[in-house]
Amino acid sequence: MAEYPPSLERLFHELEKLPGIGPRTAQRLAFHMLKQPADASKALAQSLVEARTKLHPCKDCFNLTEEILCRICSMGTRDKTSLLVVEDPSDVVAFERTHEYHGLYHVLGGTLSPLEGRGPENLTLDALVARVKGRPTFKEIIVATDPTVEGDSTALYIQQLLKGTAVKVTRLARGLPSGGDVEYADESTLLKALEGRREL
Amino acid sequence: MAEYPPSLERLFHELEKLPGIGPRTAQRLAFHMLKQPADASKALAQSLVEARTKLHPCKDCFNLTEEILCRICSMGTRDKTSLLVVEDPSDVVAFERTHEYHGLYHVLGGTLSPLEGRGPENLTLDALVARVKGRPTFKEIIVATDPTVEGDSTALYIQQLLKGTAVKVTRLARGLPSGGDVEYADESTLLKALEGRREL
Repeated sequence: MAEYPPSLERLFHELEKLPGIGPRTAQRLAFHMLKQPADASKALAQSLVEARTKLHPCKDCFNLTEEILCRICSMGTRDKTSLLVVEDPSDVVAFERTHEYHGLYHVLGGTLSPLEGRGPENLTLDALVARVKGRPTFKEIIVATDPTVEGDSTALYIQQLLKGTAVKVTRLARGLPSGGDVEYADESTLLKALEGRREL
Repeated sequence: MAEYPPSLERLFHELEKLPGIGPRTAQRLAFHMLKQPADASKALAQSLVEARTKLHPCKDCFNLTEEILCRICSMGTRDKTSLLVVEDPSDVVAFERTHEYHGLYHVLGGTLSPLEGRGPENLTLDALVARVKGRPTFKEIIVATDPTVEGDSTALYIQQLLKGTAVKVTRLARGLPSGGDVEYADESTLLKALEGRREL
């Protein structure tokens, strides 16, 4: 089989590194980009380098921002008694989409994972403790890490860290997802839904 | 809802322009890229601009190449009696993957499509005719445009264009795809499979 030109091969290779992009999709994307006017691929390349250069963690909450403080931290109108702790900036986006949470955030940068070599020093846990202790406005810390083994142990770790303080540490509810089906729910979800049952 | 920083918004927007990438996937890709070291996004951006700059159509067959002639056209070993006409460079890749076609290619750059405003002048049809008339080695032109209305009408148009010449113009077989199921085949495919039936 005839090989590809080197620059095309390199583009395939770089695209394949992205999550969820296999060799076939990488090829389709590459050929699509090459069909577009040169300006289009330059715009994509530029937006990529620019985002990577301009964005950095917010000084307070570690959400992505181009300024010193992110838009949420610099809003005067957010509820300063409540702090929602999430794994990644994309989780902040998910909560903002509900339009119902008006407090502040803290982005951990992942979860504790001994298997993948991520300890407390890899997360923004020191900053979280300093923030909670330094600012007595917080009444509740809602830990919204993923409902996984790593997410759960990270939540427990945070609870331990904040034990001496006056704030209440809570965790997101577990149960059936909206629109779900009892018949197809896994055992763990059903157990959590039972445990967490509430009076009507 | 708090808006995104402008450079992040721009990256989402550029990624969403890609085929098969919706807003959610664009977000996932963007956040992934921002988590990687800066070198990784620079490498992707560079490979993109470089591919777009270095690659151009082969002088003979319009396949993508960094040289004057593509690798297939510049191989001495290809069968010069047979010319396979395809829509796009990605189709050349598909045929090369079969390891069974050893002739030359001609890349049209799409199909005729009055609805999308693509006429004969937008394809490499003049070059195809010049190539076939100018080089008497070709004995067969295999039209391998997609089995769609546009692909079929482009094939007919090519047959008309080459009417005066001595070459045989053929079209890829239509029928059931390998591994397919008669029960689930659509009417058009079944009809073509019937029409094209061959003695065992």
